[in-house]
Amino acid sequence: MEGDPTLQLRIFDLNCWAIRYLSKRRQERVRLIGDMLRREEFDLVLLQEVWSEQDYSDLKVKLGRCYPFSHYFRSGVIGSGLCVFSRFPILDTLLYQYSLNGYPYMLQHGDWFCGKSVGLVIVKISGIIFNVYVTHLHAEYCREKDAYLPHRLVQAWELAQFIRHTSKAADVVLLGGDLNMHPEDVGIRLLRGWTGLRDAFAEATRFEGCEDGCTLVPNNCFTVKTELLPFPLGIRIDYILYKAISSFTVKCEELKTTTGTAPGKDIPFSDHEAVMATLLIQRQGQAAGATHSTAELTLADVVTEARLEVGVGLRAAQRQRYSTGRMAVLALLLLLLQVLAVLGALVGLDAGQPFPKLSFSLLAFLAIGILLLATGLHLFHTMEVKMLQGTEEQMRMVLQALRDRP
Amino acid sequence: MEGDPTLQLRIFDLNCWAIRYLSKRRQERVRLIGDMLRREEFDLVLLQEVWSEQDYSDLKVKLGRCYPFSHYFRSGVIGSGLCVFSRFPILDTLLYQYSLNGYPYMLQHGDWFCGKSVGLVIVKISGIIFNVYVTHLHAEYCREKDAYLPHRLVQAWELAQFIRHTSKAADVVLLGGDLNMHPEDVGIRLLRGWTGLRDAFAEATRFEGCEDGCTLVPNNCFTVKTELLPFPLGIRIDYILYKAISSFTVKCEELKTTTGTAPGKDIPFSDHEAVMATLLIQRQGQAAGATHSTAELTLADVVTEARLEVGVGLRAAQRQRYSTGRMAVLALLLLLLQVLAVLGALVGLDAGQPFPKLSFSLLAFLAIGILLLATGLHLFHTMEVKMLQGTEEQMRMVLQALRDRP
Repeated sequence: MEGDPTLQLRIFDLNCWAIRYLSKRRQERVRLIGDMLRREEFDLVLLQEVWSEQDYSDLKVKLGRCYPFSHYFRSGVIGSGLCVFSRFPILDTLLYQYSLNGYPYMLQHGDWFCGKSVGLVIVKISGIIFNVYVTHLHAEYCREKDAYLPHRLVQAWELAQFIRHTSKAADVVLLGGDLNMHPEDVGIRLLRGWTGLRDAFAEATRFEGCEDGCTLVPNNCFTVKTELLPFPLGIRIDYILYKAISSFTVKCEELKTTTGTAPGKDIPFSDHEAVMATLLIQRQGQAAGATHSTAELTLADVVTEARLEVGVGLRAAQRQRYSTGRMAVLALLLLLLQVLAVLGALVGLDAGQPFPKLSFSLLAFLAIGILLLATGLHLFHTMEVKMLQGTEEQMRMVLQALRDRP
Repeated sequence: MEGDPTLQLRIFDLNCWAIRYLSKRRQERVRLIGDMLRREEFDLVLLQEVWSEQDYSDLKVKLGRCYPFSHYFRSGVIGSGLCVFSRFPILDTLLYQYSLNGYPYMLQHGDWFCGKSVGLVIVKISGIIFNVYVTHLHAEYCREKDAYLPHRLVQAWELAQFIRHTSKAADVVLLGGDLNMHPEDVGIRLLRGWTGLRDAFAEATRFEGCEDGCTLVPNNCFTVKTELLPFPLGIRIDYILYKAISSFTVKCEELKTTTGTAPGKDIPFSDHEAVMATLLIQRQGQAAGATHSTAELTLADVVTEARLEVGVGLRAAQRQRYSTGRMAVLALLLLLLQVLAVLGALVGLDAGQPFPKLSFSLLAFLAIGILLLATGLHLFHTMEVKMLQGTEEQMRMVLQALRDRP
């Protein structure tokens, strides 16, 4: 790069859908992904849903020559699924696990078990410090009645806060991942507004790929067609976002997506399309000043909107906390009644045994089961309430600060 | 501060032991703490174990005039217990919850329910950016056989990483809290080595208070005397640590601790002693360069030592994961056997019912209970293994980087 003030950086982002035993033709696809990454020689590769550490290790071995540096982020029961491959040395890493991530009892959705997180790797290229973030937010299972919206909003907020607080010494910030939000959703607007990140798709000089930059398309043989019925072109939920912090400018020269099938194969790399950006990074005389006043006015609106949604989630969580607490108390009362009945029988107060032994014991076990379950759920929803309250409070502080600024 | 290049900052740190229903004379002590804080007019007040939000609200009302800015950090079932009062505006906050924090089934210890975290508040005083961290690490219940040492080490490591990554734009870093580690413990050496933080007690020009700066002393009527038997003077586990990052120097002019009872009262503020530091912050020509080579040699030793302990915890967690998994499988097999027996009886394969109905049902309920419990524990220990592996891997990376440096 000596003598040339412009750095060209090629970034690859993909939700790999590599769930052991569940994802179709997983090993074959991971092999295809590896082959393509080795062929294309990107500078940075950001992957999600690499749930199996074996898949990561296989990729690491395969890509060792082109991408000598890599990191796998561990968290949750299954793992975070996040990993990064880099042509340049990784100087440091940090993982932040989102405080809310769905419900452990929603086994059919399973997000809770994945320990959804944001991973940060710090890379220095040609003397420029890059803070590279990779993340995967909670899935949206029903757009009309999205029970997880408050959790996803808390995650978007925590993601923005994490980026803001950890990127202060960076020259350039890059974020890649499956955000599970459409471009106009409040969570995306919150994330972009609060961090100043720009959308590579919207900024790209050239674009090539699925129409509207969609990354979940009906054309892909692994997507569930019924889920995409309201969106004939597909939806765009995978992003590469960027911004320059210090005296640099970043431009997106080109953005590409894959389009359903891997080149020359009958299957795609994943049920998501990959996003590939070519960025140009250039040093400039002085840091660019944003037009604060309008941006902050819009930001205040977005934060207010997000706070309302978090408030809705808070009230739902409070209701759940209350009903599970009441259930636990009722089960405890039933158990106490049974204990009293047994004690009564023991000291001879009862004329006869009112219940047959079998039903009596079954009832006791049922009561114990409900008590344990309801207590567990009550504790869980208590934590949920605390985290939603904490986020609402932080948003209130930010709104106050935005209003107080001259 | 205009015209005067030296800023004097007075910091107060206390583990308040304010657990609702459990802590002795809680409300009276919280009142005493509030009175004293109002009288003394510190610049920054860092509190731990303020578990009741009501206590925080009461303090906020009482201290509103001297400390117009404050923040309470919410997390876990009970809360983080952390809060900050400040004479200067709080610009921003962030909470990081430690990934490991004891075991939910150790009800008698209860740390798990508190969602132990580190809270960050950013304060600007006379143009100097202060990153102020407040935290409380997992308690040590038995020094000889400390089952929580790996978890506390992971917390110390995550605390250090969090401080390093979030403080890059700060001028001065301050950390106050109950670290539950003696000054020579590996966790403290790890934290100090990896962040460069300095111990106010060791650096103080003047000291006044309990001998050796102890903060858990036999002289305090609320401490458990038997636990302090091996330490006649008490132990030092509450700290104020600091460092300057950019072109500033920080000196500790004075360090004080309380000494058992609140002035003019028959009871102390808490079962811990408060730590009060007076720091002098001065701008200097250029950033101070540390003597890297020796410092990094020692750091490598400390990280190696900590990694060994994390490895011990990892193997224990793996054993637990295995035994709970085996227990779940056995319970499942028992249940399957019972289902087979019932099916056999239904299709008339059995000559007679081998068990009485009552014992048969009780056994089934027992098996279901054990299956659920063992599965839950198995999931928990799987997460524990992941986080310990992640920390070990991060430490390995750091050691590699330390070795690779010229």
